[in-house]
Amino acid sequence: MALLAGLRVPARSLLRAGARLRDAALGRWERAAGGGGDGARSFGSQRVLVEPDAATGVAVMKLWNPPVNSLSLDLLTELVISLEKLENEKTFRGIILTSDLPGIFSAGLDLTEMCGRNPAHYAEYWKALQELWLRLYQTHLVVIAAINGASPAGGCLLALSCDYRVLADNPKFIIGLNETLLGIVAPFWFKDTMINTIGHRATERALQLGLLFRPAEALQVGVVDQVVPEGQVQGAALSAMTQWLAIPDHARQLTKSMMRKATADRLLTQREADIQNFVSFLSRDSIQKALQVYLEKLRQKKG
Amino acid sequence: MALLAGLRVPARSLLRAGARLRDAALGRWERAAGGGGDGARSFGSQRVLVEPDAATGVAVMKLWNPPVNSLSLDLLTELVISLEKLENEKTFRGIILTSDLPGIFSAGLDLTEMCGRNPAHYAEYWKALQELWLRLYQTHLVVIAAINGASPAGGCLLALSCDYRVLADNPKFIIGLNETLLGIVAPFWFKDTMINTIGHRATERALQLGLLFRPAEALQVGVVDQVVPEGQVQGAALSAMTQWLAIPDHARQLTKSMMRKATADRLLTQREADIQNFVSFLSRDSIQKALQVYLEKLRQKKG
Amino acid sequence: MALLAGLRVPARSLLRAGARLRDAALGRWERAAGGGGDGARSFGSQRVLVEPDAATGVAVMKLWNPPVNSLSLDLLTELVISLEKLENEKTFRGIILTSDLPGIFSAGLDLTEMCGRNPAHYAEYWKALQELWLRLYQTHLVVIAAINGASPAGGCLLALSCDYRVLADNPKFIIGLNETLLGIVAPFWFKDTMINTIGHRATERALQLGLLFRPAEALQVGVVDQVVPEGQVQGAALSAMTQWLAIPDHARQLTKSMMRKATADRLLTQREADIQNFVSFLSRDSIQKALQVYLEKLRQKKG
Repeated sequence: MALLAGLRVPARSLLRAGARLRDAALGRWERAAGGGGDGARSFGSQRVLVEPDAATGVAVMKLWNPPVNSLSLDLLTELVISLEKLENEKTFRGIILTSDLPGIFSAGLDLTEMCGRNPAHYAEYWKALQELWLRLYQTHLVVIAAINGASPAGGCLLALSCDYRVLADNPKFIIGLNETLLGIVAPFWFKDTMINTIGHRATERALQLGLLFRPAEALQVGVVDQVVPEGQVQGAALSAMTQWLAIPDHARQLTKSMMRKATADRLLTQREADIQNFVSFLSRDSIQKALQVYLEKLRQKKG
Repeated sequence: MALLAGLRVPARSLLRAGARLRDAALGRWERAAGGGGDGARSFGSQRVLVEPDAATGVAVMKLWNPPVNSLSLDLLTELVISLEKLENEKTFRGIILTSDLPGIFSAGLDLTEMCGRNPAHYAEYWKALQELWLRLYQTHLVVIAAINGASPAGGCLLALSCDYRVLADNPKFIIGLNETLLGIVAPFWFKDTMINTIGHRATERALQLGLLFRPAEALQVGVVDQVVPEGQVQGAALSAMTQWLAIPDHARQLTKSMMRKATADRLLTQREADIQNFVSFLSRDSIQKALQVYLEKLRQKKG
Repeated sequence: MALLAGLRVPARSLLRAGARLRDAALGRWERAAGGGGDGARSFGSQRVLVEPDAATGVAVMKLWNPPVNSLSLDLLTELVISLEKLENEKTFRGIILTSDLPGIFSAGLDLTEMCGRNPAHYAEYWKALQELWLRLYQTHLVVIAAINGASPAGGCLLALSCDYRVLADNPKFIIGLNETLLGIVAPFWFKDTMINTIGHRATERALQLGLLFRPAEALQVGVVDQVVPEGQVQGAALSAMTQWLAIPDHARQLTKSMMRKATADRLLTQREADIQNFVSFLSRDSIQKALQVYLEKLRQKKG
């Protein structure tokens, strides 16, 4: 079972996975341009910029993997590292997860990681995705998604794994698990995450039809908790964060774990089998050919 | 545990189970009167008329078991056979399930199969009902219910087992699992199917109170997905079908299975016990007497 | 894991747990002042007044444990006994659960039972709470909550365990599982009861944030089924009861059991571990200190 970038999203160049515009090395600390006047130090990796505010205990985590924040192996790895780093700093209690690219939150999985590589690479890639989800879904930090762009497939999964979702009100900012549109199937833990958010029936329909919800629909079905004008998404996320941080951490964390542990454990108990599923799925000739055709189309569009 | 026809539905003659107006033999292929100009061949059995449209890959399956489409053993058997036949024809991708009788989709189980027979008959009957549900709930075909009449009890189960439900907007076209009104209990897999559709709390209330929802209520609680004017139910079902068939079959089928398999497996693992439950329930003197009284009332109403 | 009285509720004197204004002995039958003209006999214990109406088969059960109906060990015990008594009288089919104190349904667990006592007392207390929930959640009687006051924490649990909830429309009559506000965590069976009522996502948010819903919000999220003007709550509860009692008892009871047994069994299979959890949680110095500080604050407020 695999999860690819959204079909309807102008995935202009999932192919430019190599583009590396920032020179910050993974894990290197740097001062962010225009960083907060409170003297907070930004840090981050090439593709994940973290703007911490020690005064509030909230860090803004921005995805930056041009052109569409596809979840490449590098981005997944850097996300896990950034998350772990914040979890280990006692100063921080909450994260605002958002995008540093205009119009796109994240386009989901990176097709170039899934095409023309060897089984070992596929396994490594899938394990990294599992790792990110397991950590994000269960982190003791409050994570609020400030969804400032489209978030199909894996992008939607990121959002669903947060504690609260604010979506900017732009009809192009569609959100959903649209895997079937590409002829593939969302893994069971994507499904479980969605069922926990919008219930069984809405998930059954959304997953089968590969529905991508516009903001008003997303709010109505429960994929997001709040829709706000485009310029206010980060402010609304910070307001929501204030409410979440008003709760004593320990009690909130235990409650979060009580709500989510069973779902995460379902993947943990069959993690290896899930990887093997993915690898054998990707190793089929028919799937590789379909992916190549799809990537070729994207290349021609660009050309 | 048993499931009978609805109490509030004018079940004019569940007793006329023997009425056989059509002479088409089971499985015999025949040209439908007024069949499509595209030369599609209709086929079907005595009680299930199938109007296939090879051009679209959609077959309309019409229940015809006068007077109220009660789910007799014959109807159950013919439904399973028709479904299997369509599943095996590669041409077909979707089914519109509807009624060929005015004002009634299906009144549910057939009391005459459950009264005054021997245990072997009860077991055969229940097994046939299980078989239909297992197949309908899990079929790889898209099944859309065009609910053009009342559908209490087993009629509601049929609808809930489809992928999408369109209900004609007529206040007489009530829908629900109303077993408790008759003093009986819906089997656990009826309950599971309803929970998967409208959630735990709404099911708890609906099942205990034997609620029969009018169209607007049915839409609000989620028992159906769409309510349309009476004349438009089949057209709306076909429109919905277009959306479902736009999805690559393989991905949609795997997703459907991922959503429904656990629920179906729950019955599969205790199928024999479920049959024994039903047989021993029906074999009680008190239940047989209650059924006889109820049937006698229906007979007198007719008289 | 523990469950305390609500933080935002003016818990004027959880400390006055000893106050015993009524002299009726536990289990003693007495004629209620102003008892029904139908000659029904009221009975009850010190803290639970039962007004039975033999004509309708409905008993009104009123909580009276001033000042805030906190669930002391005595109240829990008397509730279980009253419930058991009604279950054993074939005359009775339904209970209206309400408060005999103005403005408060129940403030939840009694802090004085959880502070400065020995482990054996904590274990006895928790077992009594489990016992009440197991019995209330699964009773074959119809139980309708006429919520005529605030019902935080354990008070909310009582309401959620009924078959139907009517809430009086007063903005002070908040309801919810607000344990995290006190730095504690609701037990898993509180969580399960809430998930069964309002679904996974709404529970996840409500439990983590310790949300206390005002009537309109409570209705919207599904914590209650109906909101009526303050003076009409008991009348509305009785009307609802009429609908529930119209259903044949046996079928309704089996259906209720089918819906709730799995949830209750989850506690039954780990009841002892759940008690040990609670005892070891309460036995921590940090928790005892926090409770003492909280109780001291309440005492000073009163002073």
